[in-house]
Amino acid sequence: MSLELSEKALHIKPSSTMAITEQAKLMKAEGKDIISFSAGEPDFRTPANIGEAAKKAIDEGRTKYTAASGLKELKEAVALKFLNFNHLVYSPEQIIISNGGKHSLSNVFTAILNEGDEVILPAPYWVTYSESAKLQGGVPIVVKTKKENAYKLTVEELESAYTEKTKALVLNSPNNPTGMVYTKEELEKIAEFAVSHDIYVIADEVYEYLCYEGTEHISIASLNNEIYKRTITVSGLSKGYSMTGWRIGYTGSSKEIAKLMNSIQSQQTSNPNTIAQIAAIEALTGDQTEVDVMRTAYNERRKYLCKRIDEINGLSCIEPQGAFYVFVDITEFLGKEYKGQKINAAADFARFLLEDYYVAVIPCEDFGFDDHFRISYSVSMEEIREGLDRIKKYCESLS
Amino acid sequence: MSLELSEKALHIKPSSTMAITEQAKLMKAEGKDIISFSAGEPDFRTPANIGEAAKKAIDEGRTKYTAASGLKELKEAVALKFLNFNHLVYSPEQIIISNGGKHSLSNVFTAILNEGDEVILPAPYWVTYSESAKLQGGVPIVVKTKKENAYKLTVEELESAYTEKTKALVLNSPNNPTGMVYTKEELEKIAEFAVSHDIYVIADEVYEYLCYEGTEHISIASLNNEIYKRTITVSGLSKGYSMTGWRIGYTGSSKEIAKLMNSIQSQQTSNPNTIAQIAAIEALTGDQTEVDVMRTAYNERRKYLCKRIDEINGLSCIEPQGAFYVFVDITEFLGKEYKGQKINAAADFARFLLEDYYVAVIPCEDFGFDDHFRISYSVSMEEIREGLDRIKKYCESLS
Repeated sequence: MSLELSEKALHIKPSSTMAITEQAKLMKAEGKDIISFSAGEPDFRTPANIGEAAKKAIDEGRTKYTAASGLKELKEAVALKFLNFNHLVYSPEQIIISNGGKHSLSNVFTAILNEGDEVILPAPYWVTYSESAKLQGGVPIVVKTKKENAYKLTVEELESAYTEKTKALVLNSPNNPTGMVYTKEELEKIAEFAVSHDIYVIADEVYEYLCYEGTEHISIASLNNEIYKRTITVSGLSKGYSMTGWRIGYTGSSKEIAKLMNSIQSQQTSNPNTIAQIAAIEALTGDQTEVDVMRTAYNERRKYLCKRIDEINGLSCIEPQGAFYVFVDITEFLGKEYKGQKINAAADFARFLLEDYYVAVIPCEDFGFDDHFRISYSVSMEEIREGLDRIKKYCESLS
Repeated sequence: MSLELSEKALHIKPSSTMAITEQAKLMKAEGKDIISFSAGEPDFRTPANIGEAAKKAIDEGRTKYTAASGLKELKEAVALKFLNFNHLVYSPEQIIISNGGKHSLSNVFTAILNEGDEVILPAPYWVTYSESAKLQGGVPIVVKTKKENAYKLTVEELESAYTEKTKALVLNSPNNPTGMVYTKEELEKIAEFAVSHDIYVIADEVYEYLCYEGTEHISIASLNNEIYKRTITVSGLSKGYSMTGWRIGYTGSSKEIAKLMNSIQSQQTSNPNTIAQIAAIEALTGDQTEVDVMRTAYNERRKYLCKRIDEINGLSCIEPQGAFYVFVDITEFLGKEYKGQKINAAADFARFLLEDYYVAVIPCEDFGFDDHFRISYSVSMEEIREGLDRIKKYCESLS
């Protein structure tokens, strides 16, 4: 036998959002005054009460293995959160605690996919969905949504993507990168389709805490018992509690799937970090003031950012209702030139912007939209102000 | 399509060591005076300097994402440890930091296995090897080692297991559950075979810090350049530093494999817990006194435990040189009866021992040896004394 590597692994894409983030970091290290809108994580510190709970756990020596699928107390806290926040009844046996939401998704794909099973991904989509599904033999079926539908999947689009091999739909609301939030009516139609065609819905709700000005987050699994049975609800502590580096995600699902994911996790990773699990209990059950403070700050930035983008000729966006991203359309700049080089896609637009104006945004080619970029407002108002001044100047130079 | 689950996932075994550990825990919770020799983790607290480094990281707000494959400073600390402790030159780009050694193994199997590739497992073997390989389409080929060879794999046995489809050999030294440590001469023969047949060696060296009374731990990858190229060295902080719940493992491999595992990890889990990574830097580069203190305590227990087992008629063991397990042969009790029930395997032996004498040991059926049990000496001397008194009484009742 020779030393061939895994064909599946060789075919996954490395994360391209990383590429521009890395370049921005390098330029910053060289002393350049970079403003980065590329981050997929909150700029706030983890609330102090959560850190204190972790430090107490360390002092008490709570640093041993837990059950592979997580501490019972944490599962109970998650179950209570599902009940109160999502109106979803999941018992602790239906909950698996993992090493972040990304890990939860990997467990879900591992549990439900067989070779050749198709997974419908409404674009724009987070690139991890396609690559993680492919690692389990899944075939991503990308359906491009329309701007006139606020980049939300319609049942007609879903129907057109459905085949005999469809196993699951990944639905991300609030959405990365668009910031759109599905309404109850929209979810009801999708749920009806999923139930009548007997497919799973993987509901990625990791941005659920970040909905603004009365927008309500609805969990698709909460609509009725039939869709509940077919849904795996994925969430985590990273975004809402500014706990990205702690790596705690979780799923709510049928007992059958939870049992399978427990086996998988017990053989592939074992429990997520014990101290972080204890910190997560404090996050979910302790004082929630800081979550509100962060949401209020995001909302202020969101409104200011959208106003500034609206004022720039050639850029357009739909005001997001959730998450901390704005999805910006640059089609009006396609075909234009910058210093003699043609702009053929958002990747070109973003490259010139970074090179000469020191502003990093994420071109969304790998999200399935090569004429849009993502701008994250998990940065300070000062940086948003200065960054948008630069983007404006850059865009004016293109006209 | 219907809601079928993954065939591969449905075929993995849940960890059976868990079953008896769980039963022992339940009995303890009922107030029974249980002595458990079932643990696969140190009974010591994580050294204080490591906990302090973690607490400092929390206070400094170092709780954000890191690069998916780990912090550069931690990779540098691991590279230095590989150099000084293992006489292995791995640059930081060859190192991937994962969520524990189990996760490292899963990454390795994901990177190198294609459907139907065979993985040779010398029995007794840790059950995770077979199940984790199966999840990536691998076919475990179990070769039972012999007691007269101290349960170590010989080249003849390796040769008999080898086929055209062999992709890798998993070699675990110091060994769980036998505690045996391969000598340089033994490793040289295995390395020669692996090189001439062009197969990978997955060297699980997670117990490397725990070798006793002059026994030297040798990393197979350090023998020569040819075997270096074909080896993925797996280790972690859990056992040597008593950091099981922190979940930090790592691999040293070729740059090509490291790059692939980086892609895999970036899409499946992202970085391991950031605070634990910072704690791991302190573990590897800080004061090592406590590691020696723990090793000294284990050694004392090891000698006492072996002496006690030797004194019990019907039990036998080979004195281990590493890890914190003794692998005990019960073949002399097969066919005997306890309260009218026949002992057909170590599973029966262990069940009666737990039910009536309140002592938990791990029967090794799932390790590929149904007539041996594993006893862990990561428990206090007092418990070893009392536990062995009970085992002795139980064995006498069987004679």
